Amino acid sequence: MAPIGKLVVCGAGLIGGSFALALRRAGAVGRIVGIGRSTASLEHAREMGAIDEIAAGWAEALDGADLVLLAAPVGQMDAIMAAMAPHLGPDTLVTDAGSTKRDVIEAIYRHLGARLGNVVPAHPIAGAEKSGAGAAFAELYDGKKVVVTPLPENTPEAIERVRAAWAACGAQIHQMSPAEHDRVFAAVSHLPHLLAFGLVHDLAGRANAEQLFSYAASGFRDFTRIAGSHPEMWRDICIANRQALLGELDQYLAELAYLRALLLAGDAPRLEKLFEEARAARNAWAERQTNIVTE
Amino acid sequence: MAPIGKLVVCGAGLIGGSFALALRRAGAVGRIVGIGRSTASLEHAREMGAIDEIAAGWAEALDGADLVLLAAPVGQMDAIMAAMAPHLGPDTLVTDAGSTKRDVIEAIYRHLGARLGNVVPAHPIAGAEKSGAGAAFAELYDGKKVVVTPLPENTPEAIERVRAAWAACGAQIHQMSPAEHDRVFAAVSHLPHLLAFGLVHDLAGRANAEQLFSYAASGFRDFTRIAGSHPEMWRDICIANRQALLGELDQYLAELAYLRALLLAGDAPRLEKLFEEARAARNAWAERQTNIVTE
Repeated sequence: MAPIGKLVVCGAGLIGGSFALALRRAGAVGRIVGIGRSTASLEHAREMGAIDEIAAGWAEALDGADLVLLAAPVGQMDAIMAAMAPHLGPDTLVTDAGSTKRDVIEAIYRHLGARLGNVVPAHPIAGAEKSGAGAAFAELYDGKKVVVTPLPENTPEAIERVRAAWAACGAQIHQMSPAEHDRVFAAVSHLPHLLAFGLVHDLAGRANAEQLFSYAASGFRDFTRIAGSHPEMWRDICIANRQALLGELDQYLAELAYLRALLLAGDAPRLEKLFEEARAARNAWAERQTNIVTE
Repeated sequence: MAPIGKLVVCGAGLIGGSFALALRRAGAVGRIVGIGRSTASLEHAREMGAIDEIAAGWAEALDGADLVLLAAPVGQMDAIMAAMAPHLGPDTLVTDAGSTKRDVIEAIYRHLGARLGNVVPAHPIAGAEKSGAGAAFAELYDGKKVVVTPLPENTPEAIERVRAAWAACGAQIHQMSPAEHDRVFAAVSHLPHLLAFGLVHDLAGRANAEQLFSYAASGFRDFTRIAGSHPEMWRDICIANRQALLGELDQYLAELAYLRALLLAGDAPRLEKLFEEARAARNAWAERQTNIVTE
């Protein structure tokens, strides 16, 4: 790939910081400038060498920038794009790391309409238990999937350069439409998070919550791990992707209605058949996973 | 505790085999006799030293037995008790390891009515990823909870001796009513299993199942780990405890209806508040767990 002379990372936490460190490891980047709402986080990123300097504002950050990564919670993307738009030149590429795509793309059309050729949305399927600059590391994206969801207006060169940047981070590049992306992740990520938050919230509100939790074991621990996820980030994801998420939730409610009917009828054979099919699918999936990622 | 001269283990898999090994470790038992539907499993248990001999039938097994542990799936308890009843003497204690209690107790009243003083139901909250005699080990119950749910007819001596036997295995003994037990475990164990089986079954039936699974990450892996559980065992548990489980499922459906309304309304503040409360409860619980168990 052509070297990135000046990289701008908006949000220098786990995702943005690791992107910077990975490109530096690849020798693919010159100067790295950080910008974001948390000065403490940016200072931390500079101290650990993820970024070289902190920009005072978008005019300074975007001056001569080759590539910008937007790595903020999706709920902030609209305000970020509104702020950067006046300073975004014709030669600067933009990509993002948002967990949802249609809402980010709506913000792109609202604010960056003059630069659509160069703004290529993406979503790295990577994460870690901890967040923040201190959790960033150069290997985060090694072997992980990055889903690029190009706009019809993107130039082939812009798509290729954004793919190359993520590939230089060590990632496997996949491509799909924004709508397909949002449906897939509503099913395998957003819905499970919603269900886990819901179960813990349900039980925590009971009069005997303390007793209930005292008998919870490892099945409950694993099932509810994702209920320990970041509330603001997941609020943004659920709101941004609520159309696809409602569709998934309704399909799941239909599944639960079926399970409820089997329980009411005491239909042991059909219940066992359903459990068998689920176990077979789950185990086949788990065996195929050679490189499962934390999200 | 008074030593157990002859112990009978019905079902010499992970639970029964580990009970035998733990009592042997404690020097609390003389001879250990295995009985069950799988000859291969019993042979395996004998080869690894969990049991000393295999009984050809209940008459032989119960002759002179001091303590019997029923460690079979709860769906088999009725047939097992019917078979053992004619041979159960007045001096033999019986306990079980069933994950549900009211159904086991109904079987006790149906078949062991003449011996109610000595039949003390229990449920060890312990398990492991693997099952079968080969997975058994003496330390399985160390520090784990065992819930004893005595019958009104139990003699104080029988309760004390059953508690002492489980304590000799290294367990912490808790006591509650069968109905309370079944409600608690419907909430923190049976419902999560049902939900995980349901989600995997739902997704596995989609036309794009392969695509969906290919993008599933670690949140999905942990959320669905319990969908890899044993279908027959969980069929039995769900059927046996379906009254309490339906109650829990309906409460959860109400929670999902609330979440659905928040999504439809795009109510970001209430959604974030709910996620915050869930995260706080989940993290507080996880921090209290010093000895979490696999079930």
